[in-house]
Amino acid sequence: MPYELHYWPTIQGRGEFVRLALEAAGADYVDVARGCAGEGRGVAAMMHFMESSEVQRPPFAPPFLVDGKVIVGQTAAILLYLGPRLGLVGKSEAQRLWTHQLQLTVADAVAEAHDTHHPIASSLYYEDQKPEAARRAREFRQVRIPKYLAWFESVLQRNPKGNAHLVGARLSYADLSLFQLVAGLLYAFPKACRRALNKTPGVDALHGSVAQNKRVAAYLASERRIAFNEDGIFRRYPELDA
Amino acid sequence: MPYELHYWPTIQGRGEFVRLALEAAGADYVDVARGCAGEGRGVAAMMHFMESSEVQRPPFAPPFLVDGKVIVGQTAAILLYLGPRLGLVGKSEAQRLWTHQLQLTVADAVAEAHDTHHPIASSLYYEDQKPEAARRAREFRQVRIPKYLAWFESVLQRNPKGNAHLVGARLSYADLSLFQLVAGLLYAFPKACRRALNKTPGVDALHGSVAQNKRVAAYLASERRIAFNEDGIFRRYPELDA
Repeated sequence: MPYELHYWPTIQGRGEFVRLALEAAGADYVDVARGCAGEGRGVAAMMHFMESSEVQRPPFAPPFLVDGKVIVGQTAAILLYLGPRLGLVGKSEAQRLWTHQLQLTVADAVAEAHDTHHPIASSLYYEDQKPEAARRAREFRQVRIPKYLAWFESVLQRNPKGNAHLVGARLSYADLSLFQLVAGLLYAFPKACRRALNKTPGVDALHGSVAQNKRVAAYLASERRIAFNEDGIFRRYPELDA
Repeated sequence: MPYELHYWPTIQGRGEFVRLALEAAGADYVDVARGCAGEGRGVAAMMHFMESSEVQRPPFAPPFLVDGKVIVGQTAAILLYLGPRLGLVGKSEAQRLWTHQLQLTVADAVAEAHDTHHPIASSLYYEDQKPEAARRAREFRQVRIPKYLAWFESVLQRNPKGNAHLVGARLSYADLSLFQLVAGLLYAFPKACRRALNKTPGVDALHGSVAQNKRVAAYLASERRIAFNEDGIFRRYPELDA
Protein backbone atom coordinates (compact mmCIF):
# COMPACT_ATOMS: atom_id res chain seq x y z
CA MET A 1 0.00 0.00 0.00
CA PRO A 2 1.51 3.37 -0.96
CA TYR A 3 2.36 5.96 1.62
CA GLU A 4 -0.10 8.83 1.69
CA LEU A 5 1.44 12.28 1.96
CA HIS A 6 -1.01 14.98 2.94
CA TYR A 7 -0.03 18.59 2.30
CA TRP A 8 -1.34 21.80 0.74
CA PRO A 9 -1.44 21.17 -3.01
CA THR A 10 -0.01 24.41 -4.41
CA ILE A 11 3.18 24.97 -2.42
CA GLN A 12 6.37 23.11 -1.59
CA GLY A 13 6.24 24.23 2.02
CA ARG A 14 7.14 21.80 4.76
CA GLY A 15 5.65 18.96 2.74
CA GLU A 16 8.61 19.18 0.40
CA PHE A 17 10.97 17.73 2.99
CA VAL A 18 8.85 14.60 3.10
CA ARG A 19 8.33 14.53 -0.66
CA LEU A 20 12.08 14.69 -1.28
CA ALA A 21 12.68 11.72 1.02
CA LEU A 22 9.97 9.66 -0.67
CA GLU A 23 11.28 10.61 -4.12
CA ALA A 24 14.94 10.02 -3.32
CA ALA A 25 14.09 6.55 -2.05
CA GLY A 26 11.89 5.73 -5.03
CA ALA A 27 9.04 5.03 -2.64
CA ASP A 28 5.49 4.37 -3.74
CA TYR A 29 3.38 7.27 -2.47
CA VAL A 30 0.29 9.31 -3.20
CA ASP A 31 0.26 13.09 -2.85
CA VAL A 32 -3.29 13.06 -1.58
CA ALA A 33 -4.37 16.70 -1.63
CA ARG A 34 -3.14 17.09 -5.19
CA GLY A 35 -5.45 14.32 -6.36
CA CYS A 36 -9.05 14.44 -7.56
CA ALA A 37 -12.00 14.63 -5.25
CA GLY A 38 -13.72 12.13 -7.53
CA GLU A 39 -11.10 9.57 -6.54
CA GLY A 40 -11.45 10.33 -2.84
CA ARG A 41 -8.47 12.65 -2.83
CA GLY A 42 -8.03 16.43 -2.85
CA VAL A 43 -7.92 18.90 0.00
CA ALA A 44 -11.14 17.58 1.51
CA ALA A 45 -9.53 14.17 2.00
CA MET A 46 -6.69 15.86 3.83
CA MET A 47 -8.96 18.01 5.97
CA HIS A 48 -10.87 14.94 7.08
CA PHE A 49 -7.89 13.85 9.17
CA MET A 50 -7.59 17.27 10.75
CA GLU A 51 -11.24 17.90 11.44
CA SER A 52 -12.93 14.56 12.09
CA SER A 53 -13.43 13.82 15.75
CA GLU A 54 -12.98 10.15 14.91
CA VAL A 55 -9.27 10.55 14.28
CA GLN A 56 -7.63 9.45 17.50
CA ARG A 57 -4.30 11.11 16.83
CA PRO A 58 -5.10 14.22 14.80
CA PRO A 59 -2.29 16.19 13.18
CA PHE A 60 -1.98 19.80 14.32
CA ALA A 61 -1.21 20.89 10.76
CA PRO A 62 -0.05 19.47 7.42
CA PRO A 63 2.17 17.84 6.40
CA PHE A 64 1.23 14.47 7.78
CA LEU A 65 1.79 10.94 6.58
CA VAL A 66 -0.70 8.11 6.58
CA ASP A 67 0.75 4.61 6.44
CA GLY A 68 -2.03 2.11 7.00
CA LYS A 69 -3.25 2.78 10.53
CA VAL A 70 -0.34 5.06 11.38
CA ILE A 71 -0.86 8.83 11.12
CA VAL A 72 2.20 10.97 11.76
CA GLY A 73 2.35 14.74 11.77
CA GLN A 74 5.25 17.18 12.21
CA THR A 75 7.80 17.10 9.41
CA ALA A 76 10.69 15.95 11.59
CA ALA A 77 8.61 13.19 13.15
CA ILE A 78 7.52 11.99 9.71
CA LEU A 79 11.17 11.75 8.67
CA LEU A 80 12.04 10.02 11.93
CA TYR A 81 9.44 7.42 10.98
CA LEU A 82 10.32 7.17 7.30
CA GLY A 83 14.11 7.35 7.61
CA PRO A 84 14.75 3.70 8.50
CA ARG A 85 11.97 2.45 6.21
CA LEU A 86 13.37 4.32 3.21
CA GLY A 87 17.02 3.60 3.94
CA LEU A 88 17.69 7.29 4.48
CA VAL A 89 19.31 7.10 7.90
CA GLY A 90 22.07 5.05 9.50
CA LYS A 91 21.37 1.97 11.57
CA SER A 92 22.80 2.97 14.95
CA GLU A 93 20.84 4.92 17.54
CA ALA A 94 23.62 7.53 17.59
CA GLN A 95 23.38 8.10 13.85
CA ARG A 96 19.61 8.28 13.93
CA LEU A 97 19.61 10.76 16.77
CA TRP A 98 22.24 12.95 15.13
CA THR A 99 20.38 12.89 11.81
CA HIS A 100 17.21 13.90 13.64
CA GLN A 101 19.03 16.70 15.45
CA LEU A 102 20.19 18.05 12.09
CA GLN A 103 16.63 17.86 10.77
CA LEU A 104 15.31 19.79 13.76
CA THR A 105 17.87 22.51 13.11
CA VAL A 106 16.80 22.70 9.46
CA ALA A 107 13.23 23.04 10.77
CA ASP A 108 14.24 25.96 12.97
CA ALA A 109 15.84 27.70 9.99
CA VAL A 110 12.74 27.06 7.89
CA ALA A 111 10.48 28.59 10.54
CA GLU A 112 12.71 31.67 10.63
CA ALA A 113 12.66 31.92 6.83
CA HIS A 114 8.86 31.89 6.96
CA ASP A 115 8.79 34.62 9.56
CA THR A 116 10.84 36.98 7.38
CA HIS A 117 7.68 37.65 5.38
CA HIS A 118 5.25 36.95 8.21
CA PRO A 119 6.87 38.35 11.36
CA ILE A 120 3.57 39.44 12.90
CA ALA A 121 0.89 36.92 11.95
CA SER A 122 0.40 34.04 9.51
CA SER A 123 -3.23 35.07 9.30
CA LEU A 124 -2.33 38.46 7.75
CA TYR A 125 -0.98 39.17 4.29
CA TYR A 126 2.64 40.08 3.70
CA GLU A 127 1.39 43.47 2.58
CA ASP A 128 0.01 44.02 6.08
CA GLN A 129 3.41 43.54 7.71
CA LYS A 130 5.96 44.86 5.25
CA PRO A 131 7.89 47.24 7.52
CA GLU A 132 8.25 44.54 10.14
CA ALA A 133 9.24 42.04 7.45
CA ALA A 134 11.98 44.36 6.23
CA ARG A 135 13.49 44.56 9.70
CA ARG A 136 13.23 40.85 10.36
CA ALA A 137 14.64 39.92 6.95
CA ARG A 138 17.69 42.11 7.51
CA GLU A 139 18.52 40.20 10.68
CA PHE A 140 17.87 36.90 8.94
CA ARG A 141 20.18 37.80 6.04
CA GLN A 142 22.97 39.28 8.10
CA VAL A 143 23.00 37.03 11.14
CA ARG A 144 20.86 33.94 10.83
CA ILE A 145 21.59 32.59 7.33
CA PRO A 146 25.37 32.83 7.89
CA LYS A 147 25.05 31.25 11.34
CA TYR A 148 22.97 28.30 10.19
CA LEU A 149 25.07 27.59 7.10
CA ALA A 150 28.32 27.91 9.06
CA TRP A 151 27.06 25.36 11.55
CA PHE A 152 26.13 22.89 8.81
CA GLU A 153 29.54 23.52 7.26
CA SER A 154 31.23 22.55 10.52
CA VAL A 155 29.07 19.43 10.68
CA LEU A 156 30.19 18.44 7.18
CA GLN A 157 33.84 19.22 7.85
CA ARG A 158 33.86 17.19 11.05
CA ASN A 159 32.17 14.13 9.61
CA PRO A 160 34.82 11.42 10.01
CA LYS A 161 33.47 9.71 6.89
CA GLY A 162 34.15 12.79 4.74
CA ASN A 163 32.35 15.97 3.87
CA ALA A 164 30.16 14.62 1.08
CA HIS A 165 27.35 13.89 3.54
CA LEU A 166 26.19 15.27 6.85
CA VAL A 167 26.09 11.86 8.55
CA GLY A 168 28.27 8.91 7.65
CA ALA A 169 29.13 8.05 4.05
CA ARG A 170 25.65 7.82 2.57
CA LEU A 171 22.72 10.00 1.66
CA SER A 172 20.38 10.67 4.58
CA TYR A 173 17.19 12.64 4.91
CA ALA A 174 19.23 15.38 6.58
CA ASP A 175 21.21 15.85 3.34
CA LEU A 176 17.97 16.12 1.40
CA SER A 177 16.58 18.62 3.87
CA LEU A 178 19.71 20.76 3.82
CA PHE A 179 19.51 20.72 0.02
CA GLN A 180 15.93 21.97 0.25
CA LEU A 181 16.80 24.66 2.78
CA VAL A 182 19.59 25.97 0.54
CA ALA A 183 17.37 25.76 -2.55
CA GLY A 184 14.73 27.77 -0.76
CA LEU A 185 17.18 30.35 0.53
CA LEU A 186 18.67 30.72 -2.95
CA TYR A 187 15.19 31.36 -4.28
CA ALA A 188 14.11 33.81 -1.60
CA PHE A 189 17.41 35.52 -0.79
CA PRO A 190 19.66 34.93 -3.81
CA LYS A 191 22.18 37.60 -2.89
CA ALA A 192 22.41 36.92 0.81
CA CYS A 193 22.42 33.15 0.40
CA ARG A 194 25.13 33.26 -2.25
CA ARG A 195 27.31 35.38 0.03
CA ALA A 196 26.89 32.84 2.82
CA LEU A 197 27.52 29.88 0.52
CA ASN A 198 30.77 31.44 -0.62
CA LYS A 199 31.97 30.95 2.94
CA THR A 200 30.53 27.45 3.28
CA PRO A 201 31.86 25.49 0.30
CA GLY A 202 30.89 22.13 1.74
CA VAL A 203 27.25 23.16 2.04
CA ASP A 204 27.37 24.62 -1.45
CA ALA A 205 28.79 21.37 -2.81
CA LEU A 206 26.23 19.25 -0.97
CA HIS A 207 23.42 21.33 -2.45
CA GLY A 208 24.85 20.66 -5.89
CA SER A 209 25.44 16.96 -5.42
CA VAL A 210 21.98 16.24 -4.03
CA ALA A 211 20.47 18.01 -7.05
CA GLN A 212 22.41 15.58 -9.24
CA ASN A 213 21.33 12.46 -7.40
CA LYS A 214 19.63 10.44 -10.10
CA ARG A 215 16.21 10.12 -8.50
CA VAL A 216 16.27 13.64 -7.09
CA ALA A 217 17.22 15.10 -10.47
CA ALA A 218 14.39 13.21 -12.16
CA TYR A 219 11.97 14.46 -9.54
CA LEU A 220 13.14 18.08 -9.77
CA ALA A 221 12.63 17.97 -13.54
CA SER A 222 9.16 16.48 -13.22
CA GLU A 223 5.77 18.09 -12.77
CA ARG A 224 5.64 16.58 -9.32
CA ARG A 225 8.04 19.31 -8.16
CA ILE A 226 5.90 22.38 -7.51
CA ALA A 227 7.77 25.58 -8.41
CA PHE A 228 8.73 27.95 -5.64
CA ASN A 229 6.12 30.69 -5.41
CA GLU A 230 4.94 33.55 -3.25
CA ASP A 231 2.41 31.48 -1.33
CA GLY A 232 5.04 29.18 0.14
CA ILE A 233 7.60 29.41 2.90
CA PHE A 234 10.42 30.66 0.68
CA ARG A 235 9.20 33.75 -1.17
CA ARG A 236 11.13 36.01 -3.48
CA TYR A 237 10.36 39.54 -2.44
CA PRO A 238 13.35 41.45 -3.82
CA GLU A 239 12.95 44.16 -1.19
CA LEU A 240 13.77 41.58 1.48
CA ASP A 241 17.09 40.57 -0.11
CA ALA A 242 20.18 42.74 -0.38
CA MET B 1 27.71 8.60 35.72
CA PRO B 2 25.16 11.42 36.00
CA TYR B 3 23.61 12.99 32.93
CA GLU B 4 25.04 16.40 32.15
CA LEU B 5 22.48 19.05 31.21
CA HIS B 6 23.99 22.11 29.58
CA TYR B 7 21.88 25.26 29.48
CA TRP B 8 22.05 28.96 30.25
CA PRO B 9 22.20 29.24 34.04
CA THR B 10 19.76 32.07 34.79
CA ILE B 11 16.64 31.16 32.83
CA GLN B 12 14.25 28.22 32.53
CA GLY B 13 14.14 28.52 28.76
CA ARG B 14 14.15 25.40 26.65
CA GLY B 15 16.41 23.68 29.17
CA GLU B 16 13.45 23.46 31.51
CA PHE B 17 11.76 20.80 29.39
CA VAL B 18 14.78 18.57 29.88
CA ARG B 19 15.15 19.48 33.54
CA LEU B 20 11.53 18.56 34.24
CA ALA B 21 12.00 15.14 32.65
CA LEU B 22 15.15 14.47 34.65
CA GLU B 23 13.50 15.66 37.87
CA ALA B 24 10.24 13.78 37.34
CA ALA B 25 12.20 10.57 36.82
CA GLY B 26 14.43 11.16 39.83
CA ALA B 27 17.44 10.92 37.52
CA ASP B 28 20.98 11.67 38.62
CA TYR B 29 22.10 14.77 36.71
CA VAL B 30 24.35 17.78 36.85
CA ASP B 31 23.16 21.20 35.70
CA VAL B 32 26.58 22.03 34.32
CA ALA B 33 26.45 25.74 33.55
CA ARG B 34 25.03 26.49 36.99
CA GLY B 35 28.07 24.90 38.64
CA CYS B 36 31.38 26.44 39.68
CA ALA B 37 34.20 27.06 37.27
CA GLY B 38 36.55 25.80 39.99
CA GLU B 39 34.92 22.39 39.66
CA GLY B 40 35.15 22.40 35.87
CA ARG B 41 31.59 23.59 35.45
CA GLY B 42 29.96 26.92 34.68
CA VAL B 43 29.16 28.56 31.38
CA ALA B 44 32.71 28.05 30.07
CA ALA B 45 32.30 24.29 30.39
CA MET B 46 29.12 24.54 28.33
CA MET B 47 30.66 26.79 25.71
CA HIS B 48 33.48 24.32 25.21
CA PHE B 49 31.08 21.92 23.52
CA MET B 50 29.76 24.64 21.25
CA GLU B 51 33.05 26.22 20.31
CA SER B 52 35.73 23.54 20.33
CA SER B 53 36.55 22.23 16.89
CA GLU B 54 37.28 18.88 18.53
CA VAL B 55 33.61 18.20 19.18
CA GLN B 56 32.52 15.98 16.32
CA ARG B 57 28.82 16.60 16.75
CA PRO B 58 28.52 20.16 18.03
CA PRO B 59 25.17 21.43 19.29
CA PHE B 60 23.77 24.41 17.40
CA ALA B 61 22.56 25.94 20.67
CA PRO B 62 21.80 24.98 24.28
CA PRO B 63 20.19 22.99 25.72
CA PHE B 64 22.19 19.88 25.07
CA LEU B 65 22.75 16.70 27.00
CA VAL B 66 26.01 14.88 27.53
CA ASP B 67 25.75 11.21 28.47
CA GLY B 68 29.20 9.68 28.35
CA LYS B 69 30.27 9.93 24.74
CA VAL B 70 26.81 10.91 23.50
CA ILE B 71 26.10 14.62 22.93
CA VAL B 72 22.53 15.47 21.95
CA GLY B 73 21.19 18.92 21.14
CA GLN B 74 17.68 20.14 20.30
CA THR B 75 15.18 19.86 23.14
CA ALA B 76 12.90 17.41 21.36
CA ALA B 77 15.81 15.18 20.35
CA ILE B 78 17.09 15.16 23.93
CA LEU B 79 13.69 14.00 25.13
CA LEU B 80 13.53 11.42 22.35
CA TYR B 81 16.79 10.06 23.75
CA LEU B 82 15.91 10.34 27.42
CA GLY B 83 12.28 9.22 27.22
CA PRO B 84 12.87 5.46 27.15
CA ARG B 85 15.82 5.70 29.55
CA LEU B 86 13.78 7.61 32.13
CA GLY B 87 10.57 5.63 31.71
CA LEU B 88 8.78 8.71 30.40
CA VAL B 89 7.43 7.27 27.16
CA GLY B 90 5.52 4.15 26.15
CA LYS B 91 7.24 1.09 24.76
CA SER B 92 5.70 0.84 21.30
CA GLU B 93 7.02 2.71 18.28
CA ALA B 94 3.57 4.23 17.76
CA GLN B 95 3.47 5.62 21.29
CA ARG B 96 6.99 6.99 21.04
CA LEU B 97 6.31 8.66 17.74
CA TRP B 98 3.06 10.20 18.96
CA THR B 99 4.71 11.45 22.14
CA HIS B 100 7.45 13.00 20.03
CA GLN B 101 4.92 14.62 17.72
CA LEU B 102 3.26 16.20 20.75
CA GLN B 103 6.64 17.44 21.96
CA LEU B 104 7.39 19.02 18.58
CA THR B 105 4.07 20.84 18.73
CA VAL B 106 4.89 22.14 22.20
CA ALA B 107 8.21 23.30 20.73
CA ASP B 108 6.40 25.23 17.99
CA ALA B 109 4.23 26.95 20.57
CA VAL B 110 7.29 27.81 22.66
CA ALA B 111 9.04 29.37 19.66
CA GLU B 112 5.96 31.48 18.99
CA ALA B 113 5.79 32.54 22.65
CA HIS B 114 9.40 33.69 22.40
CA ASP B 115 8.69 35.67 19.27
CA THR B 116 5.92 37.67 20.95
CA HIS B 117 8.62 39.72 22.65
CA HIS B 118 11.24 39.25 19.94
CA PRO B 119 9.37 39.35 16.63
CA ILE B 120 12.22 41.06 14.78
CA ALA B 121 15.53 39.81 16.16
CA SER B 122 16.81 37.84 19.13
CA SER B 123 19.91 40.00 18.98
CA LEU B 124 17.93 43.15 19.80
CA TYR B 125 16.31 44.12 23.08
CA TYR B 126 12.57 43.93 23.58
CA GLU B 127 12.64 47.71 23.92
CA ASP B 128 13.89 47.89 20.33
CA GLN B 129 10.87 46.02 18.94
CA LYS B 130 7.95 46.96 21.18
CA PRO B 131 5.44 48.06 18.50
CA GLU B 132 6.05 44.87 16.53
CA ALA B 133 5.81 42.84 19.73
CA ALA B 134 2.44 44.37 20.53
CA ARG B 135 1.08 43.33 17.14
CA ARG B 136 2.51 39.85 17.28
CA ALA B 137 1.36 39.28 20.85
CA ARG B 138 -2.20 40.20 19.97
CA GLU B 139 -2.27 37.49 17.31
CA PHE B 140 -0.68 35.03 19.71
CA ARG B 141 -3.25 35.75 22.41
CA GLN B 142 -6.28 35.80 20.19
CA VAL B 143 -5.49 33.03 17.71
CA ARG B 144 -2.49 30.93 18.58
CA ILE B 145 -2.88 30.21 22.32
CA PRO B 146 -6.52 29.12 21.86
CA LYS B 147 -5.58 26.99 18.83
CA TYR B 148 -2.71 25.19 20.53
CA LEU B 149 -4.59 24.53 23.75
CA ALA B 150 -7.70 23.38 21.89
CA TRP B 151 -5.60 20.88 19.97
CA PHE B 152 -4.03 19.49 23.14
CA GLU B 153 -7.52 19.31 24.64
CA SER B 154 -8.70 17.18 21.71
CA VAL B 155 -5.66 14.94 22.16
CA LEU B 156 -6.52 14.43 25.83
CA GLN B 157 -10.21 13.84 25.15
CA ARG B 158 -9.45 11.28 22.43
CA ASN B 159 -6.92 9.30 24.45
CA PRO B 160 -8.56 5.86 24.74
CA LYS B 161 -6.84 5.40 28.11
CA GLY B 162 -8.54 8.46 29.56
CA ASN B 163 -7.89 12.18 29.68
CA ALA B 164 -5.48 12.23 32.61
CA HIS B 165 -2.50 11.93 30.26
CA LEU B 166 -1.73 12.84 26.68
CA VAL B 167 -0.48 9.38 25.75
CA GLY B 168 -1.63 6.14 27.35
CA ALA B 169 -2.30 5.86 31.06
CA ARG B 170 1.01 7.06 32.45
CA LEU B 171 3.05 10.22 32.76
CA SER B 172 5.16 10.94 29.67
CA TYR B 173 7.57 13.71 28.81
CA ALA B 174 4.81 15.23 26.67
CA ASP B 175 2.68 15.71 29.80
CA LEU B 176 5.60 17.42 31.52
CA SER B 177 6.19 19.65 28.52
CA LEU B 178 2.54 20.64 28.23
CA PHE B 179 2.61 21.47 31.94
CA GLN B 180 5.61 23.73 31.32
CA LEU B 181 4.02 25.38 28.30
CA VAL B 182 0.90 26.19 30.31
CA ALA B 183 2.94 27.36 33.29
CA GLY B 184 4.88 29.68 31.01
CA LEU B 185 1.78 31.00 29.30
CA LEU B 186 0.11 31.61 32.66
CA TYR B 187 3.17 33.61 33.70
CA ALA B 188 3.51 35.63 30.50
CA PHE B 189 -0.13 35.99 29.48
CA PRO B 190 -2.18 35.38 32.63
CA LYS B 191 -5.37 36.85 31.26
CA ALA B 192 -5.26 35.34 27.78
CA CYS B 193 -4.09 31.94 28.99
CA ARG B 194 -6.77 31.75 31.67
CA ARG B 195 -9.44 32.53 29.07
CA ALA B 196 -8.13 29.72 26.86
CA LEU B 197 -7.87 27.28 29.78
CA ASN B 198 -11.49 27.93 30.68
CA LYS B 199 -12.34 26.31 27.36
CA THR B 200 -9.84 23.47 27.72
CA PRO B 201 -10.59 21.88 31.09
CA GLY B 202 -8.52 18.78 30.37
CA VAL B 203 -5.40 20.83 29.72
CA ASP B 204 -6.11 22.89 32.82
CA ALA B 205 -6.47 19.72 34.90
CA LEU B 206 -3.29 18.19 33.47
CA HIS B 207 -1.36 21.34 34.36
CA GLY B 208 -2.63 20.99 37.91
CA SER B 209 -1.99 17.27 38.26
CA VAL B 210 1.57 17.43 36.94
CA ALA B 211 2.33 20.20 39.45
CA GLN B 212 1.18 17.81 42.17
CA ASN B 213 3.27 14.88 41.02
CA LYS B 214 5.43 14.14 44.05
CA ARG B 215 8.82 14.59 42.41
CA VAL B 216 7.70 17.52 40.28
CA ALA B 217 6.20 19.28 43.30
CA ALA B 218 9.43 18.81 45.26
CA TYR B 219 11.41 20.16 42.34
CA LEU B 220 9.16 23.18 41.84
CA ALA B 221 9.51 24.06 45.53
CA SER B 222 13.30 23.72 45.42
CA GLU B 223 16.01 26.19 44.51
CA ARG B 224 16.74 24.10 41.46
CA ARG B 225 13.64 25.60 39.82
CA ILE B 226 14.70 28.98 38.46
CA ALA B 227 11.89 31.52 38.71
CA PHE B 228 10.30 32.81 35.51
CA ASN B 229 11.92 36.11 34.62
CA GLU B 230 12.20 38.68 31.86
CA ASP B 231 15.34 37.17 30.34
CA GLY B 232 13.63 33.88 29.50
CA ILE B 233 11.23 32.68 26.84
CA PHE B 234 8.08 33.40 28.83
CA ARG B 235 8.18 37.05 29.91
CA ARG B 236 5.55 39.01 31.77
CA TYR B 237 5.19 42.29 29.97
CA PRO B 238 1.70 43.41 31.01
CA GLU B 239 1.32 45.47 27.85
CA LEU B 240 1.46 42.24 25.83
CA ASP B 241 -1.41 40.61 27.72
CA ALA B 242 -5.01 41.72 27.61
